[in-house]
Amino acid sequence: MKYPNGKKYVASQEEKVEQKRRSLLSAANRGMSLEEDINLSNDYYRDAGIALITKRPTPINVVKVDYSRGGKITDAYFEKQSTTDYNGVYKGKYVDFEAKNTKSETSFPISNISEHQIIHLKNVLKHGGIAFFIICFQLKNEIYLLDASFVIDFYEHGSRKSIPYSVFKEKGVLIRQDYTPRLHFIDAVEKLYFRK
Amino acid sequence: MKYPNGKKYVASQEEKVEQKRRSLLSAANRGMSLEEDINLSNDYYRDAGIALITKRPTPINVVKVDYSRGGKITDAYFEKQSTTDYNGVYKGKYVDFEAKNTKSETSFPISNISEHQIIHLKNVLKHGGIAFFIICFQLKNEIYLLDASFVIDFYEHGSRKSIPYSVFKEKGVLIRQDYTPRLHFIDAVEKLYFRK
Repeated sequence: MKYPNGKKYVASQEEKVEQKRRSLLSAANRGMSLEEDINLSNDYYRDAGIALITKRPTPINVVKVDYSRGGKITDAYFEKQSTTDYNGVYKGKYVDFEAKNTKSETSFPISNISEHQIIHLKNVLKHGGIAFFIICFQLKNEIYLLDASFVIDFYEHGSRKSIPYSVFKEKGVLIRQDYTPRLHFIDAVEKLYFRK
Repeated sequence: MKYPNGKKYVASQEEKVEQKRRSLLSAANRGMSLEEDINLSNDYYRDAGIALITKRPTPINVVKVDYSRGGKITDAYFEKQSTTDYNGVYKGKYVDFEAKNTKSETSFPISNISEHQIIHLKNVLKHGGIAFFIICFQLKNEIYLLDASFVIDFYEHGSRKSIPYSVFKEKGVLIRQDYTPRLHFIDAVEKLYFRK
């Protein structure tokens, strides 16, 4: 946004907070994407000093860069993430997870998960890290945190190509949805991995 | 590579290992970049089941995508990494670090580090993670691992704009250089954080 005097408009801290609040509210009404909800929750957890979780940038294969135009990338392609989208630290422990939506009401199709991600999460578990999935059943408006071991087990030994909703109900933790943070997924991590 | 029969050439496991060994040797002679050395070391550590460290992809701001040409990105720009280049898990603990080269023989200039990275690494320490820098003194061919707390201290309270080489000698751990892995930096992590 530019003012008539040509100066760039810079929002004050108060304005930014209010903008964020409004965007949160309207977004909640619109049905914001799972990814955006997680990113906003990560911002909250970071700023509140609760956990430090970051999203890995989408890997892009850069073919051509035009240095005569300030390093403009003119030819590139999106690549598949070979690991997961999120990792970070909570109470000193390594945390790693992938988030997925499903429109199914009865099960989560494993086809949504790549073999690379399964291998990566197996490695995380092997090294003593915390590994899980955040799965959003969109039509139910329910979001579950499920330990990666269940998903790995279904992937490798399951006779079915999807994980029944009942597994999430029984073995997962329902994530509370709110405004700040949008998703209280660290509460679910605390419940599942730290209260023993 | 394609054979005359039109079939794609697929290297056997033995050939792949030998290719990797040769590429490592020749690369060592060429003077491979610090980043490549770390990436190869991470591959080794992952395959050997010792640690799981991944490089965050370079963030790219995508302006325009041509979907009529298979999702070709036609306008985009490199963005600055707002965190660090590497993170992962070793013995259940969260590990996070940044790697930098310097041509100076007497000190490492702090100007090589962004404020974002300092804030990020302070947060990592706050949450009980392991945070450090891998600094390569190129003219000495010496690579040190130094805990992030020293760098943060110099950044925030130092009267000088660089960290003397002597700090690395006294407080850091010299990383052994080899073929597989190229950099034994997990040995340095073990020595600094686990043998107490």
